[in-house]
Amino acid sequence: MDLSIKQLNTFFTPCSVAVVGATKKINKAGHVIFKNFADNKRRGLFKGEIFPVNPHEESILGFPCYPSLIKIPEEIELVITVVPARIVPQIMEDAAAKRVKTVVIISSGFSEIGKHELENKIVFIAKKAGIRILGPNCLGVYDSRTGVDMLFLPETKILTTGEEVIATPRPLPGNMAIVTQSGAFGVAALDYLAGRQIGVSKFVSFGNKCDVNEAEMLHYLLHDNHTKVILLYVEDIKSGRQFMEIAKKVTQKKPIIAIKAGKTAPGARAAASHTGAMAGSDQIYDAVFEQTGIIRAHDMEEFFDAGKALAMQPPASGKNIGIITSAGGPGIMTVDECVLNGLNVKKFSKSTIKKFDRLKEEGKIPKFATYLNPVDVTGSVTSEMFEYTTEILFQDPEIHGLIVLGLHHTPAIQEDYIDKVAAVASKYNKPIVACDIGETEMALHTRFRFDKLGIPAYPSPEDAARAMNALVKYGVYLKKKGYLQEYMKNFLENKKK
Amino acid sequence: MDLSIKQLNTFFTPCSVAVVGATKKINKAGHVIFKNFADNKRRGLFKGEIFPVNPHEESILGFPCYPSLIKIPEEIELVITVVPARIVPQIMEDAAAKRVKTVVIISSGFSEIGKHELENKIVFIAKKAGIRILGPNCLGVYDSRTGVDMLFLPETKILTTGEEVIATPRPLPGNMAIVTQSGAFGVAALDYLAGRQIGVSKFVSFGNKCDVNEAEMLHYLLHDNHTKVILLYVEDIKSGRQFMEIAKKVTQKKPIIAIKAGKTAPGARAAASHTGAMAGSDQIYDAVFEQTGIIRAHDMEEFFDAGKALAMQPPASGKNIGIITSAGGPGIMTVDECVLNGLNVKKFSKSTIKKFDRLKEEGKIPKFATYLNPVDVTGSVTSEMFEYTTEILFQDPEIHGLIVLGLHHTPAIQEDYIDKVAAVASKYNKPIVACDIGETEMALHTRFRFDKLGIPAYPSPEDAARAMNALVKYGVYLKKKGYLQEYMKNFLENKKK
Repeated sequence: MDLSIKQLNTFFTPCSVAVVGATKKINKAGHVIFKNFADNKRRGLFKGEIFPVNPHEESILGFPCYPSLIKIPEEIELVITVVPARIVPQIMEDAAAKRVKTVVIISSGFSEIGKHELENKIVFIAKKAGIRILGPNCLGVYDSRTGVDMLFLPETKILTTGEEVIATPRPLPGNMAIVTQSGAFGVAALDYLAGRQIGVSKFVSFGNKCDVNEAEMLHYLLHDNHTKVILLYVEDIKSGRQFMEIAKKVTQKKPIIAIKAGKTAPGARAAASHTGAMAGSDQIYDAVFEQTGIIRAHDMEEFFDAGKALAMQPPASGKNIGIITSAGGPGIMTVDECVLNGLNVKKFSKSTIKKFDRLKEEGKIPKFATYLNPVDVTGSVTSEMFEYTTEILFQDPEIHGLIVLGLHHTPAIQEDYIDKVAAVASKYNKPIVACDIGETEMALHTRFRFDKLGIPAYPSPEDAARAMNALVKYGVYLKKKGYLQEYMKNFLENKKK
Repeated sequence: MDLSIKQLNTFFTPCSVAVVGATKKINKAGHVIFKNFADNKRRGLFKGEIFPVNPHEESILGFPCYPSLIKIPEEIELVITVVPARIVPQIMEDAAAKRVKTVVIISSGFSEIGKHELENKIVFIAKKAGIRILGPNCLGVYDSRTGVDMLFLPETKILTTGEEVIATPRPLPGNMAIVTQSGAFGVAALDYLAGRQIGVSKFVSFGNKCDVNEAEMLHYLLHDNHTKVILLYVEDIKSGRQFMEIAKKVTQKKPIIAIKAGKTAPGARAAASHTGAMAGSDQIYDAVFEQTGIIRAHDMEEFFDAGKALAMQPPASGKNIGIITSAGGPGIMTVDECVLNGLNVKKFSKSTIKKFDRLKEEGKIPKFATYLNPVDVTGSVTSEMFEYTTEILFQDPEIHGLIVLGLHHTPAIQEDYIDKVAAVASKYNKPIVACDIGETEMALHTRFRFDKLGIPAYPSPEDAARAMNALVKYGVYLKKKGYLQEYMKNFLENKKK
């Protein structure tokens, strides 16, 4: 492991952690964070040692409390600080004296409100001591596997009715990493992904990024075995050249989906007042993302949808999409969205059409079925019809990806069509995504079952088309760069595991 | 009531209905439809008489069965037929003989598969007898208040686990009408709306529209007291001039949100193979919608989101939007999406800024709060801060609509902020929409509570911005045409009820 990666690793798997500003007072950041570690240590999830630091307490949650960092007799790898900004330089000095490796500064009140000098001061101390800083003005790290959880947002809240409900869920272990400049957006992302039952590998909120920036985090995640896909939220990118260099390396192995806030002039103005940083023109970001193979999402929904698609499915080696639908209207909507995104929805080849003709002759698809692309198996569709038609399109060498719309409402369709489609898909290395529309039980069940079998399912035709678009964009980039074969090899090996 | 409206009314509140092709065999359309009526009659919801027609049955679900329409001794207002296409002309002759007012032809196998002659034949019989036809190749009507339910899609399904789940829900009574060319999309819409707890007034699936078309339905709904907003799905519009004339009248009183499938050439080709109809160029539809004040949705999500916004909130009288957020990043995303949609997110006036300055001096908002638009009340936000800042923006005469992002994750925010914001909003006649991100308990609870208090809430910043855009587009149209004042008067009167 290279040295810098080894150091950054202490953000995620520290042997020992000190929480400066830990307190007994509930709802305070210093309480929630320390309690996260104490709880996870008790559960056996967090394996390191933990030390609360607070001159006014004897002990917190059963752990002896220290008046300052330097009074801790043991070695400390990672310091998390939540004390007011003006005290942070002193904490940094203490950390330097303790030969700490990394510091996470949750505290705000630095460059984001114009206090550049204060921020420079802590960077100066860190540089001299070889300490790496995450933050300030950030939420820090959540690692689903090591029990590191710096989120000061309480997992549950109590409603006025007296009911306790999940407020800030921590997603289960998964293979998606979240790297975010906005803490609020990052937490919202965790809430979204947990609710959709999508797991997360690592969560990093880097805030003002006075030291460790998004580029270094991407580089770290390139070497993280648990991370297969990276979701990146940025408002500005400071070291453009470094970012591009690293991003190019990362996307060779792992897809990055980015959302860039502050696209418009008023948006950029809002971003500047929020982070104190000025972003360049939006076209530059477009160019940067395109050149580095980063998939740019246009809104929050697409951001998550693309992430889910790339986490579950291989990229497409071309732009030709085959669509199978049991619902005429939603089928057309899918075609439209594909085409508007630059994908091809062309008529099928003669040999594929012949296969459908035969199915019809044999009475295996309805006599009113059409197959100009989309293949419309009509409302009389059965599970077998989805099976047969999916197989035919997977076999077609001219088709690079499949979208299946199986609306569950029609009487003859049974949920086992999902298993049949998944069984066919498992024989091929082309991507497939699914759509079922609705927000009541059967629709939720259908999408969840698809997801569980590795086929990402979406609640609208357009969402499914956009997810396929991400698979195509990434695949076309890899192919152009000559990385596709290698990526596919790794993807398939991982799938087997 | 004008005569044509009176006749169309029998589709929704018939005194007597005959179901031709009714059967005892479960999962058959003729069974499900007849059972819907029988069940709703037993519940006291459907007040008319019902008659199954099937030469092979003595009785169905306890109702005596007739071998043909003409053997029914009573008068029949409405006939629903599910028999094969080739038999339909005979049914039409019988209906004519029985002096039936309206016929719904669920059966497919007409112009959508090239059988234009067969379709012309039934139209000819209908015209001669003064019968109005809905369909063929449609799902007919669902009326949440009269118990008319022609949906042949079973309300529940049994999973392989033996569990019974909701499959095609019928939404509760509400004020949104769905008028759709695609039956499948219509049913999906019901599933979506029911799951999101949004009520429906009437559902009409008109399929091939051989007689009654979308224009006439819009005209009918203009006079329907239960319908406040109309959601329209079309693939083509046949009588353009008639449609424009009527749509202009309707949008004066009731917003129409339209989704037009077949926007792209491959999409239009798919639509043609699906309905047998050719749509014109997409730009023509853009022009038609703009001239008639119809709000065009760009995808399914926006379609429903705009409908919900217009059902709950008054339109905006201008394009200036004020944004209040507790989350920096999502605030920027909201600004971006507003601006990309043509809305203005300008700096606030001096007098409004003064008010925020005073709040800050009094310690009523955090000292790090910014108010360049968005107003960023930061993660330290309390319920009162939302209350104060909302009030200030409602008071600002230069602000035409508000978007409030209250992410529930931060420790100090309590759910009562929703009630406080709603209480402030109730004093003003400007639109407001809300956003909270997340898919677990507290997020769902927050959005639901907003909805319940009449403020439409959305799961992403972009969704909220697009919903506000619909309110602005409609308001600007009404204002330009001189209808805004009258519309607002009616809207506020309805709100009081």
